[in-house]
Amino acid sequence: MVATPTAAFSFSAKVQLRNVPGVLGALCTAIGAGGGNIAALEGFEAKTETITREMAVNARDEDHAARLIEIMRQVDGVELIDHYDRTFRMHEGGKIEVLPLCPVGDADDLSMAYTPGVARVCMAIHDRPELAHEYTIKKNTVAIVSDGTAVLGLGDIGPEAAMPVMEGKALLFKAFAGVDAFPICLDTKDPDEIIETVERLAPTFGGINLEDISAPRAFIIEDTLKERLEIPVFHDDQHGTAVVTLAALRNALKITGKSMSDLSIVISGMGAAGLAIGKILINAGVGEIVGVDRAGAVYSGRDNLNYAKEWFATNTNPDRKMGSVAEVLAGTDVFVGVSAPDLITAADLRTMAKDPIVFAMANPNPEIRPEDADGLAAVMATGRSDYPNQINNVLAFPGIFRGAFDAGAREITENMKLAAADGIANAVSDAELSPSFVVPSVFDRSVVDAVAPAVAAAAVADGVTRSGS
Amino acid sequence: MVATPTAAFSFSAKVQLRNVPGVLGALCTAIGAGGGNIAALEGFEAKTETITREMAVNARDEDHAARLIEIMRQVDGVELIDHYDRTFRMHEGGKIEVLPLCPVGDADDLSMAYTPGVARVCMAIHDRPELAHEYTIKKNTVAIVSDGTAVLGLGDIGPEAAMPVMEGKALLFKAFAGVDAFPICLDTKDPDEIIETVERLAPTFGGINLEDISAPRAFIIEDTLKERLEIPVFHDDQHGTAVVTLAALRNALKITGKSMSDLSIVISGMGAAGLAIGKILINAGVGEIVGVDRAGAVYSGRDNLNYAKEWFATNTNPDRKMGSVAEVLAGTDVFVGVSAPDLITAADLRTMAKDPIVFAMANPNPEIRPEDADGLAAVMATGRSDYPNQINNVLAFPGIFRGAFDAGAREITENMKLAAADGIANAVSDAELSPSFVVPSVFDRSVVDAVAPAVAAAAVADGVTRSGS
Repeated sequence: MVATPTAAFSFSAKVQLRNVPGVLGALCTAIGAGGGNIAALEGFEAKTETITREMAVNARDEDHAARLIEIMRQVDGVELIDHYDRTFRMHEGGKIEVLPLCPVGDADDLSMAYTPGVARVCMAIHDRPELAHEYTIKKNTVAIVSDGTAVLGLGDIGPEAAMPVMEGKALLFKAFAGVDAFPICLDTKDPDEIIETVERLAPTFGGINLEDISAPRAFIIEDTLKERLEIPVFHDDQHGTAVVTLAALRNALKITGKSMSDLSIVISGMGAAGLAIGKILINAGVGEIVGVDRAGAVYSGRDNLNYAKEWFATNTNPDRKMGSVAEVLAGTDVFVGVSAPDLITAADLRTMAKDPIVFAMANPNPEIRPEDADGLAAVMATGRSDYPNQINNVLAFPGIFRGAFDAGAREITENMKLAAADGIANAVSDAELSPSFVVPSVFDRSVVDAVAPAVAAAAVADGVTRSGS
Repeated sequence: MVATPTAAFSFSAKVQLRNVPGVLGALCTAIGAGGGNIAALEGFEAKTETITREMAVNARDEDHAARLIEIMRQVDGVELIDHYDRTFRMHEGGKIEVLPLCPVGDADDLSMAYTPGVARVCMAIHDRPELAHEYTIKKNTVAIVSDGTAVLGLGDIGPEAAMPVMEGKALLFKAFAGVDAFPICLDTKDPDEIIETVERLAPTFGGINLEDISAPRAFIIEDTLKERLEIPVFHDDQHGTAVVTLAALRNALKITGKSMSDLSIVISGMGAAGLAIGKILINAGVGEIVGVDRAGAVYSGRDNLNYAKEWFATNTNPDRKMGSVAEVLAGTDVFVGVSAPDLITAADLRTMAKDPIVFAMANPNPEIRPEDADGLAAVMATGRSDYPNQINNVLAFPGIFRGAFDAGAREITENMKLAAADGIANAVSDAELSPSFVVPSVFDRSVVDAVAPAVAAAAVADGVTRSGS
């Protein structure tokens, strides 16, 4: 797969052009011939003999960006005055800030927001601890907790290096759902220490979003914290992906006309996401599920199963199917991949039941390329933004916490996750629905508006709200 | 001391007045007669027979506010439609929010701020950890850490109830110095657990502001964290108060014409603030210092000294003075109180040297009332906003962290604190300087502008900046 130039590898360049016809054209031609895309061309300052312009150029990778800059330098009549990496520039000083919600412009403001007035609010909370959810940021604030052990596809890069991802998550929480979120990257990988630290931090926060913590440690951490804390705890790598996958599947079934209970599904990849997808599909009533890891199909009694896979083996694959992913895929309706690139082939898809549904979500390169599945899959989805049907957690986590906060939920239940999936699926109207549009756009603001109330209603129905307990 | 009506105990009321002359006058008169102050009178909507108005009324305390509301109900021609507590309203949903510093409006934004672009920033930090101070919020973000054991004058009210104070501090950090600060209230009182938790959180933050942790635990926590972390650690209850006290003293000396080295000072109160004031005064070159706690003067060899007081006894009171505060005060130049209300009398001041300086900072009620010291003290300061010369930490902590961040400081040294005190003192011009104006207003924006560069310069001089190490 040849990479497309992207903003992720873009740079901004300030160029001075000799003020004669054709120079800008020559520059643009050179960039295009070099494989770069001009994303923006702005501003100019015409001096007697020169014109200054600012250009944003997308490249394929860092080396490509460096080559493009060299190419630009070589164009006759062009002087490269300055250039910078747009992605790094965007991250300078971090990506979030903490702002006051009330004024402190005069003594009256100060006497209410701070001493002596604040003491009255403190004592009210001291007397009735549940008021913390009314008069502090606990009402609307999530901690995004990571130890940096499983960051994106980068692996164990440590807590400092994980911060840009957690900050990115925080800004998505706020931009998409008005949820205040703060990154907490921890200098420990010990599950017990992580649990203990989050418990100690809990008075500050209204919810805990666990992020990029490697499996199976993440399962133990989530399960224990859910048990011990009275606020929602949510491991996004598991449940965010699972919720969006289920949403996409619901819409894919509308196209193929199949029903959940009749489905036979293969899940490739038994990490955090794969196991959680399996669990939500069980709860959604899927007929048959078979999980596959590097050692092949997961079945009851197999060797080398951690406690999470052990649970999975017990609760899926009733026929104890064995073998490779290609072997178990024959005759099934749905392939869900959260594993590794280029794992299955067009030939494998031909062995599946009629109108196969293929969700190949390995990042950045899917289990099978959409080009190769073309004409074979009834519906195809990936984790990428440059193909149709992107399965992206951003569709789930902002609305789930929005709904949980709106309802004053003490936890996030299975029904709340199912409701979130319905909300996402319903954000695609019948008119829009098509094989290349089973997942709404991440920029579709109506998604949160559909997800949050659905999640809140499920919290009320499950009796897990603070007022309802 | 009869309390003055204050915004801290104010309420807002919506009243409907019969539209005939004299009703508003009667209402205002009734409020005034009841001891309330009308702080604001806004809006009106004239209907055929009534006018609706919104009033803000300051009261002395909660009972007084309730009485005033009752009084308002009784006024002929007035209907009280609605009322709310202005302080509680200001705290609803918390006092800070977390906002994006970069846009996420389209796919290009997302591919730079989040995946896949963010991975490049992560790996850059992974390769060169010091880049965390450039490309994450670590560059400008302080954790305000408390266990809620010594909150204002309220004592051990717990972490949830402490949150409104820490949020208030966070908004002051941002409003006064552009420093991002986030409250972290911990569900543990164990010093070792607090230390360990802050160490685990350290990758996220660029500085640690310890707050409202009871002494002597706070000393051990600060000392240990200073030793173990490579970012500034600052216990504001100690050093914030100490810095502002020294600033006030510097200006008071300009008025009395005395010099630091000739001074004899009594410090009443050997908690966090008193001990830190003693330490900074030693570093500022004060001649003689005697500390007093509930058991009397602190001297080398006395019983019942914790390790912090032990240090104090060894480094002050060379003549081993003993006795009560009144006894040791005779003949001295300066009284500094961070202890308890009404501890000394006018008669005690008469025993002091000529032109005594009296900083009576017990909150909310000082060691001696300014009325009682009138004509006796050459300079009088308190911790209150309703008397001249308020010794308020807000003058110190925002500028100290601003300066530390600007310089990329790894710690906050004694010289940085001394520089901060100079900066605050210098914010009072010679023209402004008077016995009732030795401390600048907390709303004087020039204070941070003076403090931050002074602190940054001291960090550079002390060689504690990251670039300079």
